[in-house]
Amino acid sequence: MTIQSKFSGLGTDAAPGQEVRQLSGSLGAVLRGDAITGRPVDFSHGDVDAFTPTPRSFEVFSAGVEAGGKQAYTEYRGDLAIREDLAWRLASFTGAPVDAGDGMIITPGTQGALFLAVASTVSRGDKVAIVQPDYFANRKLVEFCEGEMMPVRMDYATTQGRSGLDLGQLEDAFKSGAKVFLFSNPNNPAGVIYSREEIESIATLASRYGATVVVDQLYARLLYPGVDYTHLRAQQLDAENVVTIMGPSKTESLSGYRLGVAFGSKEIIARMEKLQAIVSLRAGGYSQAVLRTWFDEPDGWMDQRIREHQAIRDDLLKAFRATSGIQVRTTEAGSYIFPALPQLTVPGSDFVRILRLQAGVIVTPGTEFSPFSESAVRLNFSQDHAAAIAACERLVALVERYRV
Amino acid sequence: MTIQSKFSGLGTDAAPGQEVRQLSGSLGAVLRGDAITGRPVDFSHGDVDAFTPTPRSFEVFSAGVEAGGKQAYTEYRGDLAIREDLAWRLASFTGAPVDAGDGMIITPGTQGALFLAVASTVSRGDKVAIVQPDYFANRKLVEFCEGEMMPVRMDYATTQGRSGLDLGQLEDAFKSGAKVFLFSNPNNPAGVIYSREEIESIATLASRYGATVVVDQLYARLLYPGVDYTHLRAQQLDAENVVTIMGPSKTESLSGYRLGVAFGSKEIIARMEKLQAIVSLRAGGYSQAVLRTWFDEPDGWMDQRIREHQAIRDDLLKAFRATSGIQVRTTEAGSYIFPALPQLTVPGSDFVRILRLQAGVIVTPGTEFSPFSESAVRLNFSQDHAAAIAACERLVALVERYRV
Repeated sequence: MTIQSKFSGLGTDAAPGQEVRQLSGSLGAVLRGDAITGRPVDFSHGDVDAFTPTPRSFEVFSAGVEAGGKQAYTEYRGDLAIREDLAWRLASFTGAPVDAGDGMIITPGTQGALFLAVASTVSRGDKVAIVQPDYFANRKLVEFCEGEMMPVRMDYATTQGRSGLDLGQLEDAFKSGAKVFLFSNPNNPAGVIYSREEIESIATLASRYGATVVVDQLYARLLYPGVDYTHLRAQQLDAENVVTIMGPSKTESLSGYRLGVAFGSKEIIARMEKLQAIVSLRAGGYSQAVLRTWFDEPDGWMDQRIREHQAIRDDLLKAFRATSGIQVRTTEAGSYIFPALPQLTVPGSDFVRILRLQAGVIVTPGTEFSPFSESAVRLNFSQDHAAAIAACERLVALVERYRV
Repeated sequence: MTIQSKFSGLGTDAAPGQEVRQLSGSLGAVLRGDAITGRPVDFSHGDVDAFTPTPRSFEVFSAGVEAGGKQAYTEYRGDLAIREDLAWRLASFTGAPVDAGDGMIITPGTQGALFLAVASTVSRGDKVAIVQPDYFANRKLVEFCEGEMMPVRMDYATTQGRSGLDLGQLEDAFKSGAKVFLFSNPNNPAGVIYSREEIESIATLASRYGATVVVDQLYARLLYPGVDYTHLRAQQLDAENVVTIMGPSKTESLSGYRLGVAFGSKEIIARMEKLQAIVSLRAGGYSQAVLRTWFDEPDGWMDQRIREHQAIRDDLLKAFRATSGIQVRTTEAGSYIFPALPQLTVPGSDFVRILRLQAGVIVTPGTEFSPFSESAVRLNFSQDHAAAIAACERLVALVERYRV
């Protein structure tokens, strides 16, 4: 494989946040009507000005800078005292012990943790089960490591009370030799969570076939009422075969500090540290200090954050469901919503560009997450409430305008 | 190649900063005499409490946090306005144009830039010319990418006025198919710079054989008087075949913010951004703001920093040269010094552990940088002046104690 071919599959032009590098191209011929004015909303990621970082995060960062060299130069896997603080909080949250010394690594964002986890478990030709739809980088990580992707469908749209993962297809992937299963829970982009039965089945299958499971639980704290979240790592399976990834970039709006953690299998964490040593050395030393605020937010702060997100979710659901032909499942956790649009006169990728051009609305095309999601778009609704609803109305207006 | 074998070569136990994870093992049998007390000094990296971060760096970071989402979420390759500021400063410093839009990427530290540059130019089986001695991660990066290392010796010890790179061996490597040449200038660990003639020869050879050159110029600003530094990228060779890496982690003591930049070849930078998107997304958004202080330090600040480092260097040279059997070349740039010790009764790796145990002195073993450097140790002398000299005296005392 030449280096050129290796990178040809790693396109980022449609990736969230990269819209600024897209050429506007020749949309002129297909445009209908005038632009609809309104405050631009970038649904490709959360708005940390609308939902601001955890209280005290900046103060704790400042104290880290004040602490000087001790905080700037940590072990590659991160500052031990901070890992110790986090270990018991994460153990308490996930319902299974966390080893601060050998079973945890602090990374530059959860993206850093995902990269290290995949590159530490997948080598050339290894088969990896990947959910469709799921976080777009999962597929790219497997491709970069020259693994072979075994797709597993998730029928999130027509099921309720579970994610809709095709467990038969997952077992087939393991039977065919998949060594690793990588998935996000809650699912990104669909915003659904796996039921207890689904998680137990994943644990049983992974045990039976000796597979490693990497589970990205980035949004596991932002659960809407009535939702029952099950942690894979607390189930019956070999703890050395599970790596759990979390971070404070989303719900806690700490993305600007680039922090993530991976915890679980000591052997895999040890490999991840070796790799981090040549990939980025360590998560920013001063930033690591900000983890002291994590799982230690003021009383009621998280509840309020959830209530505010729920209110936006409910208004978006109402707007989408009032529009004929838009299919949308209720987000159960996190701040993604993934409506499927009716058939349009333009391809999905063009409609996404039209939305940006004519409505000042940035969304992520469904094809980033699954080849079967061409009609869907992902919105991160962690936004200013009124601006989000107004932007959603412009989106719906353009759906009407470009409808077949 | 199994994932286990892939990681077996990536050991970090002897890597700088990781000494805390070393087991003290069974040194008891070889220890001589008592510990020598004194303020511990960790020469594995600079002391940012002794040489503090650039003035205004924290204020500029704070303004970044204040700016909110705009600063937290940048393009993967970094904030455009910051890239534009930096482009002309780096062009002016290196003597060749820098394209802010397409020819530069901001990374999490220079380590991040090195990883992305190597992983974007080296695929399985590609031959890569690597200097011996050179920064220890260079070899590991090639191994991780499953490239084949072609060693090129540098006889820094017995030459003057040039680095001592074996240009014949470099040409042989290119003749044998090396596609990439990766080196640091000033050299880490030897602290020497490449002469104008050497850099011109590298440019000529790279052009002749169509090779890509990745040059790590991390310490290129900390030049001692009488030294003439030559920038490879300003020589006669195809600009698309050169990537230059720099960062403010060392001389400017901004390591805690994890910042680096790579600039040059647009095609390689584009690949690096695609890869950064799945490795760590971006350098920490708020941290990127700190680059506004880079190459914009107060008048005289850099001159004073150089004078202070020079004074420490000169005292260390005096101490080492007063000790029979220690060979050391004068550091020409940066803050590394790489003395070769006389024959000892214990292996070099044990002596490094003894130094830590009996003298409170942490140095990096020469074998991290080259298989031919077993007798050498690397010291980063960006330390408190008095503490560094006292620690050097303890080191010399232990050399005397363990001398054959």
